[in-house]
Amino acid sequence: MHSDLSQFRINAVDRALEPALRQKIDGKTKPLGALGRLEGLALQLGLIQNTLTPQMKDPHVLLCAGDHGAANDGVSAYPQDVTWQMVENFLAGGAAINALAGQADMALVIADAGVNHDFGVRAGLVDAKVAPGTASYLNGAAMTPAHAVTAIARGAAVVRDIAGSGCNVLGFGEMGIGNTASASLITHCLTGIPLADCVGRGTGLDDAGLERKQVLLAQALNLWPERPQFSRLPLPEGEVGRESPPLRQTGEERDAVAILARFGGFEIAMLAGAMLAAAEAGMVLLIDGFIVTSALLVAARLEPAILGYCVFAHRSDEAGHVRQLEHLGAEPLLNLGLRLGEGTGAALAYPLLVSACAFLAEMASFESAAVSGKL
Amino acid sequence: MHSDLSQFRINAVDRALEPALRQKIDGKTKPLGALGRLEGLALQLGLIQNTLTPQMKDPHVLLCAGDHGAANDGVSAYPQDVTWQMVENFLAGGAAINALAGQADMALVIADAGVNHDFGVRAGLVDAKVAPGTASYLNGAAMTPAHAVTAIARGAAVVRDIAGSGCNVLGFGEMGIGNTASASLITHCLTGIPLADCVGRGTGLDDAGLERKQVLLAQALNLWPERPQFSRLPLPEGEVGRESPPLRQTGEERDAVAILARFGGFEIAMLAGAMLAAAEAGMVLLIDGFIVTSALLVAARLEPAILGYCVFAHRSDEAGHVRQLEHLGAEPLLNLGLRLGEGTGAALAYPLLVSACAFLAEMASFESAAVSGKL
Repeated sequence: MHSDLSQFRINAVDRALEPALRQKIDGKTKPLGALGRLEGLALQLGLIQNTLTPQMKDPHVLLCAGDHGAANDGVSAYPQDVTWQMVENFLAGGAAINALAGQADMALVIADAGVNHDFGVRAGLVDAKVAPGTASYLNGAAMTPAHAVTAIARGAAVVRDIAGSGCNVLGFGEMGIGNTASASLITHCLTGIPLADCVGRGTGLDDAGLERKQVLLAQALNLWPERPQFSRLPLPEGEVGRESPPLRQTGEERDAVAILARFGGFEIAMLAGAMLAAAEAGMVLLIDGFIVTSALLVAARLEPAILGYCVFAHRSDEAGHVRQLEHLGAEPLLNLGLRLGEGTGAALAYPLLVSACAFLAEMASFESAAVSGKL
Repeated sequence: MHSDLSQFRINAVDRALEPALRQKIDGKTKPLGALGRLEGLALQLGLIQNTLTPQMKDPHVLLCAGDHGAANDGVSAYPQDVTWQMVENFLAGGAAINALAGQADMALVIADAGVNHDFGVRAGLVDAKVAPGTASYLNGAAMTPAHAVTAIARGAAVVRDIAGSGCNVLGFGEMGIGNTASASLITHCLTGIPLADCVGRGTGLDDAGLERKQVLLAQALNLWPERPQFSRLPLPEGEVGRESPPLRQTGEERDAVAILARFGGFEIAMLAGAMLAAAEAGMVLLIDGFIVTSALLVAARLEPAILGYCVFAHRSDEAGHVRQLEHLGAEPLLNLGLRLGEGTGAALAYPLLVSACAFLAEMASFESAAVSGKL
């Protein structure tokens, strides 16, 4: 297993250009700091691309879909069939992400990581199916560690294909009935945030449904008393990248994959691999909501340097997301009360990245425009 | 004066389509409410355009510039010359709004409402100059009521031209060294919010500069002891439009124009007129930050029904903006720590409006996509 995962070589984002980027930003014809978050975003994009003129090229959204055995045990408000029905909806162009990615001029790649449905060979659908849905973690492990590693590798392979086209910015999305429940369990085990704070209404559970979900997920934890338990990431908070990555502990890596395998799902594993390959390729990673962030928590346990490549698109209304963001010291761009998944928040935030590049490239300096400075 | 202002005929936004719009939004293939703020935005845009398929057409940003006599009395961190220098920068394409409006595919219209500089006849500059800058309100009135009405009328005329092209969505921006100070005084008088809460650092005053600004603006108020003073708007809070506009009191109208004339500036007056004409034409008004909102406070005192047409782009870092938004019961789309003006927040928020229209137009329904509903 370790040999498969050690394929990722992620360089910590190089901060050498930071002084020059700050000087360029501060010299623009505007009061110091007046473009707010857009300035920090421009800095980060410049650092990731190691240039004073970052550019977003051939943007994509990768949407991974998978089914969850536990969906049939009552953790979701919707039946499992909705996963494949929504994949059909993505392929037909009728879902929210179709409209929003289209609006943002982002290409949409749909991947079947492990949906419990036979789609056959379909134009526009990447067949990365590991198995037709996970087993329920209420009876044992959702998948084997080998399956988790396979899903990670398939996610990476898809991203290496996408990178070949020249894409340097990738949004991540997901679909999978029951996957907020998996994300809650993974988040709890990888961060130490109390389980109750990680569990939310998902697609819209009522109070009774939320209580049932809490009980079932606590039960899932209790079924695995020997589980590994992490506390906070060994990372400075709120930092974009670091000088050098902290020492890797292979035990942590093994434990993170064990947690992923225990609670699933295939789409989360595939996303973790996709993220690792995207950071390895030097892409900007546009992180969506709660489930995508749970995949990032896995990826960051394998390669902490990945975090320097991440732009957090939005603050989801799903309860656990704000806790994940706090844990990562991350400040998302949007706060629109979204809780849809599919990468919709990533697509909505993407124009801000383009705008950050645009002001950095196009604005005049006080000097070049002959505008007077502060009194 | 009254006869000039009564030219505006703004219909309260018709809410008749609300049930049909809500049904359409709720029938889309997503959990109920999962697109968060984008759903309320789609509803509002549909109501403004009175259609189930709102569309944004030929978007513009109107940027009005003007100078302030009080700028030479120490209310700003920058010299007055920066106003005309920045107008040159707009015309040369080197300012933040050029980059951001360009990115959003919004046409940019620059208008000289009253800059203290002779630009001559210039391509790309609308000459609406009322006078070369206002007088200082530290010596009396910034302008005459007749000048205020002229600026309002010129703003309206520019918008009527823009509307002729088919534009149905208009962002508002401004440039004018010293104009946060005017906006603070206007906001205080039109809302009753304590002056100290309306005064901020503008383009970047330090602590001593902020204290000086507070003292000077308090002095400006004291010089006009007979000033009218409003409290809250006679509007239901947080509502998009109303069944019928509240009774207009012509005394209020006269008083609002008196406050505008006393404290300036020409660009704020021109923006108020532009907003009134835009709402009259049924456009979507994309409201930027603190100064633009102060112009809206004036416009809403003249025609309260205007508020139904307003989308609030962002929450500015300028201290008084959050108080203005509370006063209006408005919830802005973005919160990016911007405090630049020029309409930059409006340009950054605009893609969200297009996305709201896109999901409403393009997404399949549960029925049409054959996706199962909630359990």
